Amino acid sequence: MQESNQVDYQTDPSKYQHWRIAIEAPIAFLSADVDENAGLRPGYKLKLNSYDLGVDIELNDALNRLRFEHPEVRTVIITSAKDRVFCSGANIFMLGSSSHAWKVNFCKFTNETRNGIEDSSANSGLKFIAAINGVCAGGGYELALACDEIILIDDRSSAVSLPEVPLLGVLPGTGGLTRLTDKRQVRHDLADIFCTTAEGIRGLKAKDWRLVDDIAKPAVFDKRVRERALEMSDLSDRPANARPVILQPVEREDTGNEIRYEHVSVEIDRKARTATFTVSMPTESTAANVEEFEEAGADWYPLRLAQELDDAILWMRTNELETGVWLIKTRGEIESVLSMDRILLENRDHWFVRETIGYLRRVFGRLDVSSRSLFAIIDEGSCFAGSFFELALACDRSYHLSLPGEDSAPNIALSELNFGALSMLTGESRLVRRFYGNSKILELLKAKVGRAIDADTAYELGLVTINPDELDWEDEIRIAIEERVSMSPDALTGMESNLRFNGQETMLTRIFGRLTAWQNWIFQRPNATGESGSLKVYGSGEKAKFDWDRV
Amino acid sequence: MQESNQVDYQTDPSKYQHWRIAIEAPIAFLSADVDENAGLRPGYKLKLNSYDLGVDIELNDALNRLRFEHPEVRTVIITSAKDRVFCSGANIFMLGSSSHAWKVNFCKFTNETRNGIEDSSANSGLKFIAAINGVCAGGGYELALACDEIILIDDRSSAVSLPEVPLLGVLPGTGGLTRLTDKRQVRHDLADIFCTTAEGIRGLKAKDWRLVDDIAKPAVFDKRVRERALEMSDLSDRPANARPVILQPVEREDTGNEIRYEHVSVEIDRKARTATFTVSMPTESTAANVEEFEEAGADWYPLRLAQELDDAILWMRTNELETGVWLIKTRGEIESVLSMDRILLENRDHWFVRETIGYLRRVFGRLDVSSRSLFAIIDEGSCFAGSFFELALACDRSYHLSLPGEDSAPNIALSELNFGALSMLTGESRLVRRFYGNSKILELLKAKVGRAIDADTAYELGLVTINPDELDWEDEIRIAIEERVSMSPDALTGMESNLRFNGQETMLTRIFGRLTAWQNWIFQRPNATGESGSLKVYGSGEKAKFDWDRV
Repeated sequence: MQESNQVDYQTDPSKYQHWRIAIEAPIAFLSADVDENAGLRPGYKLKLNSYDLGVDIELNDALNRLRFEHPEVRTVIITSAKDRVFCSGANIFMLGSSSHAWKVNFCKFTNETRNGIEDSSANSGLKFIAAINGVCAGGGYELALACDEIILIDDRSSAVSLPEVPLLGVLPGTGGLTRLTDKRQVRHDLADIFCTTAEGIRGLKAKDWRLVDDIAKPAVFDKRVRERALEMSDLSDRPANARPVILQPVEREDTGNEIRYEHVSVEIDRKARTATFTVSMPTESTAANVEEFEEAGADWYPLRLAQELDDAILWMRTNELETGVWLIKTRGEIESVLSMDRILLENRDHWFVRETIGYLRRVFGRLDVSSRSLFAIIDEGSCFAGSFFELALACDRSYHLSLPGEDSAPNIALSELNFGALSMLTGESRLVRRFYGNSKILELLKAKVGRAIDADTAYELGLVTINPDELDWEDEIRIAIEERVSMSPDALTGMESNLRFNGQETMLTRIFGRLTAWQNWIFQRPNATGESGSLKVYGSGEKAKFDWDRV
Repeated sequence: MQESNQVDYQTDPSKYQHWRIAIEAPIAFLSADVDENAGLRPGYKLKLNSYDLGVDIELNDALNRLRFEHPEVRTVIITSAKDRVFCSGANIFMLGSSSHAWKVNFCKFTNETRNGIEDSSANSGLKFIAAINGVCAGGGYELALACDEIILIDDRSSAVSLPEVPLLGVLPGTGGLTRLTDKRQVRHDLADIFCTTAEGIRGLKAKDWRLVDDIAKPAVFDKRVRERALEMSDLSDRPANARPVILQPVEREDTGNEIRYEHVSVEIDRKARTATFTVSMPTESTAANVEEFEEAGADWYPLRLAQELDDAILWMRTNELETGVWLIKTRGEIESVLSMDRILLENRDHWFVRETIGYLRRVFGRLDVSSRSLFAIIDEGSCFAGSFFELALACDRSYHLSLPGEDSAPNIALSELNFGALSMLTGESRLVRRFYGNSKILELLKAKVGRAIDADTAYELGLVTINPDELDWEDEIRIAIEERVSMSPDALTGMESNLRFNGQETMLTRIFGRLTAWQNWIFQRPNATGESGSLKVYGSGEKAKFDWDRV
């Protein structure tokens, strides 16, 4: 019962309309060549390599292909296949005609894709150069900022710019303001000038202000970029001759009220405004050693799991807006999960395992920034162990059924993977977040790795929120859900965004916290989205009419 | 030409309608006894010790009195003079009937007052206990969270609660969510339950969850609070027998287009939507040693300056909303400022000097969070030296007139006070913020302390943004201002909030950044402030009608 306006995040290179991949190992060229007539929605043209969600879905897919299908690639050059234009940013007519929810969801996915670039650079030896061979504005420059280095063509016309504030009355809100300061350490007053100068900055000044790392004349631009890419490749440990893993499409069956994959299912109760995610661990062994997971390739369970969960989260976030509470369940044996985790851990330096762990880390990270209330339901038949327990730790609350002495009593367990490999955007594990880095508690928990923990013990250890017994179980959860879905969805989103990200901030949490929240505020203001607001009148020749009050 | 609806932040204890101060050295009791009929605006009653801006203006004043007029006080007990109610938070009918700008400005001032409590605890030896002797909800509990310790009466009915999300569809947005986690380290899932449980948590559970530090039965409550206050006093170095400094009212003359104090003036150009702040340093020596500033007392220049600048900022922020650009000028001799700074530095351990520096630090901190574009104008006759140079460092941009070789060429100078004593809410000095902690640059600058620096050198050192010469000076500034005032005020506010707080986050910057931005977003959403929004229908018996989409 797929509706035509639902967004599908699955694609593959044969379907690309906007990006081209070319491999010259150890370099890959990822070139934007946006088809202006192929917007995801009608009503706007994607001129000048501007982008919409569809363009970003392809970029996200392309990055995953490079990670898994091209282990020989060490440096990715992001550039443009068009003449004199690199990328002019998010399409303004798309933004002007989108609902508030669409804009926010679009920006979130864009942010996640860019964070993924930095995650791969930091953890997987995949480096990125933005080769800016033409106009680079707004979101185009924000994409460049996510790369390790930025090289700008010095042709007397190509500039980098963040014209959002002066031209559009909104922020460079998908990382721009934060990366300018936190990553590139542009002095705040120079950043102020840069962000209020619509035409941007070019040439040597762009380099002096730290907006780009290097500039190069047109005649030597390609050569300089390539040389630098090779230098960066020398520092990477991605393998030259490994067997690539060709990603397989996830198979999603949509029955209207249920989205079903091989290992993940999502049951939607639209009246109750809840969805139940069930993640299943197969009973048979998934791969016991290097030979087996290399042989399994794209069919290796942890990779399939990451793909399916990724798709389910993105699907639900975009296509089921009213479903405010997600219940997370698991099915399987905790021993099977722990055994999978051991393989992942023992082989974490193997490129394929490293990429798979990275994929899982990014998928779990999507949960943290999903604007849905998350409750883990640890019931009979569940297997919240190790990496699966991250799902419970990511939740706002967890309910663990207490059945003392019974064989079917659900247990949880920790694995080494809970102590850092699947860390949040804060750079901390969810356990460190949960216990505010209390080393005494964390040591105690480390000593319990691999051991089954029942509900009452889990409650005492602080690993779960509540441990109702059989008598209370159903009522307790039912009432909690009913209460939750009755509350203001906006207030819940704001509350969860604050409570989930307690403590340490990083550049990425500042993007999702400080920057995104301000941008969402601005997106909601009449000055931006009212009838005479800046986003509404853009391109019409009229000037925006502002209420000048400073708030 | 003072309009009747303008807000005046000046008050004194003889005018208090809501708070009582009682001194039993080393303890002070600060008791809320809100007069429900004395709201700052008509249309609501301040029942159950609920508060509005007027109540908070008195609290802010009372805290300043305790700091300066009662050096013998070491611990402040914040409590209630009413029966069975401590404080029920911000008045909802006031919030429901206020403009967006009013709500935001109100919350900002409330935040600053609470941060001031923590600033005094951290820097001045003034400790705070919240003695919760009755119902403590919402903003009432947020006030308690700002104290060093919270003691809750254990009478089977008194609870602490943050009912904003379930009852009002907004956030505990003046520090609540952030202090729960960052300061009190309440586990995020317990915080989730607490913040969605309207009736709150009482007794031992409140203590177990870290929501309060101690509980005490009614019969022993007062005694327990007093004992703890004395214990905390023992750790303070506030002097027992110092000469108090009785604060004098600032004299503000308002001519309609100009606010004039003794040392500060603000010229308002409403058509251009700019205001020019001019801060003057007296030519005569202000006090050369302990005897002199003790003798000067409330007339000591740095204290008067703090008072006047404080009042000017608050006045302009609340009463002149359309004035989007503040130009900051100074008048005087840089040697006079440097000499004042030397006195402040040499005597920084003297309680009066410590309080004065603290006051200046908090006033400069107000600039950082003011939603106005700030340009420093370093022109002939200016004295941006040391503490005065903090004004320029706080600005989004600084313009320094270059007049090479001329006697009237304006110089700037640094003093030791620029290197930490007047730090931002990030805990970093503005110089560290500016140069991202680059120790090489900071050492170079430290070597220049006390020396006059001309425009071209200041520009080279990165201390100012632009150094136009006489020919460009007027046009450069005029065009910059014209461009600035033409841009979306919301986009500028969002941009400045991000660029000014680059780098390190602290609990306080997370309150102003992450939490405030989300609250502002929610305040703007139809679910809160639309015709059937939660704030609008509160108390009417009707239920809010929500758009259930999760954004």
